Amino acid sequence: MTDFNAWARERAEHFERCAERALPPENRLPWKLNEAVRYAVLDGGKRVRPLLAYAAGDIVQAQSEALDHIALALEYIHSYSLVHDDMPCMDNDTLRRGKLTTHRKYGEAMGMLAGDALQAQAFFELTQCKLPAEQVVSLVKLLSAAAGAAGMCGGQAVDLLSVHTKPDLETLTLMHRMKTGAMIRAAALMGLYAGQQMPSAMLIGQMTAYSQAVGLAFQIIDDILDVTADTEVLGKTAGKDEADDKPTFVSLLGLEGARARARAEHEVAMQALAAIEEAGFAGKTERLAQIADFIMSRDH
Amino acid sequence: MTDFNAWARERAEHFERCAERALPPENRLPWKLNEAVRYAVLDGGKRVRPLLAYAAGDIVQAQSEALDHIALALEYIHSYSLVHDDMPCMDNDTLRRGKLTTHRKYGEAMGMLAGDALQAQAFFELTQCKLPAEQVVSLVKLLSAAAGAAGMCGGQAVDLLSVHTKPDLETLTLMHRMKTGAMIRAAALMGLYAGQQMPSAMLIGQMTAYSQAVGLAFQIIDDILDVTADTEVLGKTAGKDEADDKPTFVSLLGLEGARARARAEHEVAMQALAAIEEAGFAGKTERLAQIADFIMSRDH
Repeated sequence: MTDFNAWARERAEHFERCAERALPPENRLPWKLNEAVRYAVLDGGKRVRPLLAYAAGDIVQAQSEALDHIALALEYIHSYSLVHDDMPCMDNDTLRRGKLTTHRKYGEAMGMLAGDALQAQAFFELTQCKLPAEQVVSLVKLLSAAAGAAGMCGGQAVDLLSVHTKPDLETLTLMHRMKTGAMIRAAALMGLYAGQQMPSAMLIGQMTAYSQAVGLAFQIIDDILDVTADTEVLGKTAGKDEADDKPTFVSLLGLEGARARARAEHEVAMQALAAIEEAGFAGKTERLAQIADFIMSRDH
Repeated sequence: MTDFNAWARERAEHFERCAERALPPENRLPWKLNEAVRYAVLDGGKRVRPLLAYAAGDIVQAQSEALDHIALALEYIHSYSLVHDDMPCMDNDTLRRGKLTTHRKYGEAMGMLAGDALQAQAFFELTQCKLPAEQVVSLVKLLSAAAGAAGMCGGQAVDLLSVHTKPDLETLTLMHRMKTGAMIRAAALMGLYAGQQMPSAMLIGQMTAYSQAVGLAFQIIDDILDVTADTEVLGKTAGKDEADDKPTFVSLLGLEGARARARAEHEVAMQALAAIEEAGFAGKTERLAQIADFIMSRDH
């Protein structure tokens, strides 16, 4: 098995080629919208959600083309959420990954439409999976629930309303479970639906445990890096979250407490993978373990 | 058979009860988002898209619960598009149907999120249809294609870019086919997928012809009313479109030419229904005919 970084790079490049082909070309009507949509998706990020779907697919010997459609759908939703998040009425960001944000490059109206079109395109993409129709319906259900009011959008709404309040640990955890956790959970579960048949209740249960733990660990590490990357690497005395008086796992648990909590979530994820391995899937969860390790060890 | 107005009113009231039940309650987290989502959907409009789906369902003896889910999904997409359309970066409207627009009442960020959540909810709603899974997948495909870059969002983008240009009749027609026509077509076709089995190619073909003609007639009548309602009823010399130098079917064809074109589209719709009646569905298309008549005769 190749090392994690080589695999992740290869998968991200493969994803990029799939997206290049799947997205409507810039020279086709509505050309400006298509251009904005491609700009929002292509050449971006680590593709964490696709990586999770591909890795989960290993367990069920998933159909590789179906996984590609799932990866595209996940990243369309993630990309649209970033485009809308960057707009003036939300975070009002000018740059993302060193490029102008979509609305700064194409205007706010086109930015909003590009996001809206991407969300529709995500669900269309799922209908292109050559899988038993029951599994496609399950995929639509998982993704729409994760993206909507009970998931990502709902988490953003809770976040909006919690500005200048002091949420407790339970509320903070719930907010993150919805805002980023729901889509990370959907990514891991959707990979399981790309096999020859519906996944077992055991697989769904353990993968839910794995992905919820990984999603939370991801957010805790984010909060830790906001403090440590500033103080230790950049030499600043405090991070952006603290300056913004934003509640984080570090502000609620302290730096050591947050680190301990992240390690505990990592341990939960590993136990879930061990249970899957023992249930007849020996050697099938290595990439998922590597993703969990990567999330713990990342430094930016 | 009850008269059209009584039927349309009964269906709209039935839809309202379905939406009341289906939408997440305001007292459940994320409560402010749920409140905005309910505000955007409830107590609004003539529900033309649900009416088309219900009427099309008559042809195939559709499952009534499945039709309700389809009607909800259609109206969630339509409602979200109105919420986003009303925002400052688009039309910047303060009132809609005598109420404050969603973003004016809940703020721009919450308005955008409510629209985003509604789009996700539309696809979730389709997964709740107790129909053969192949038909549910077809419903997701129809709705996502109609809502996205090749349909509604694409039409809005073409409209945005055509400001201060002089589109010819072909471009104007294409823009409307995408912007409003795609969702009207989807509404009529989706009703056909709520039966016991996949609709025949004949039904799909004739219903496509019917719905495209009805969608175009709807827009032409809109353009005619903008002129005649002003000059004849309100006593103004010219309508808003002309004042805005906005290309319309009236500006391109003249008032009489536009009326003739609307009559021709109505005739196309009626021929499609006649073909369906003759193919073994005698007496099943009356509501669809009434909808076409209603669209021709409306005065506001």
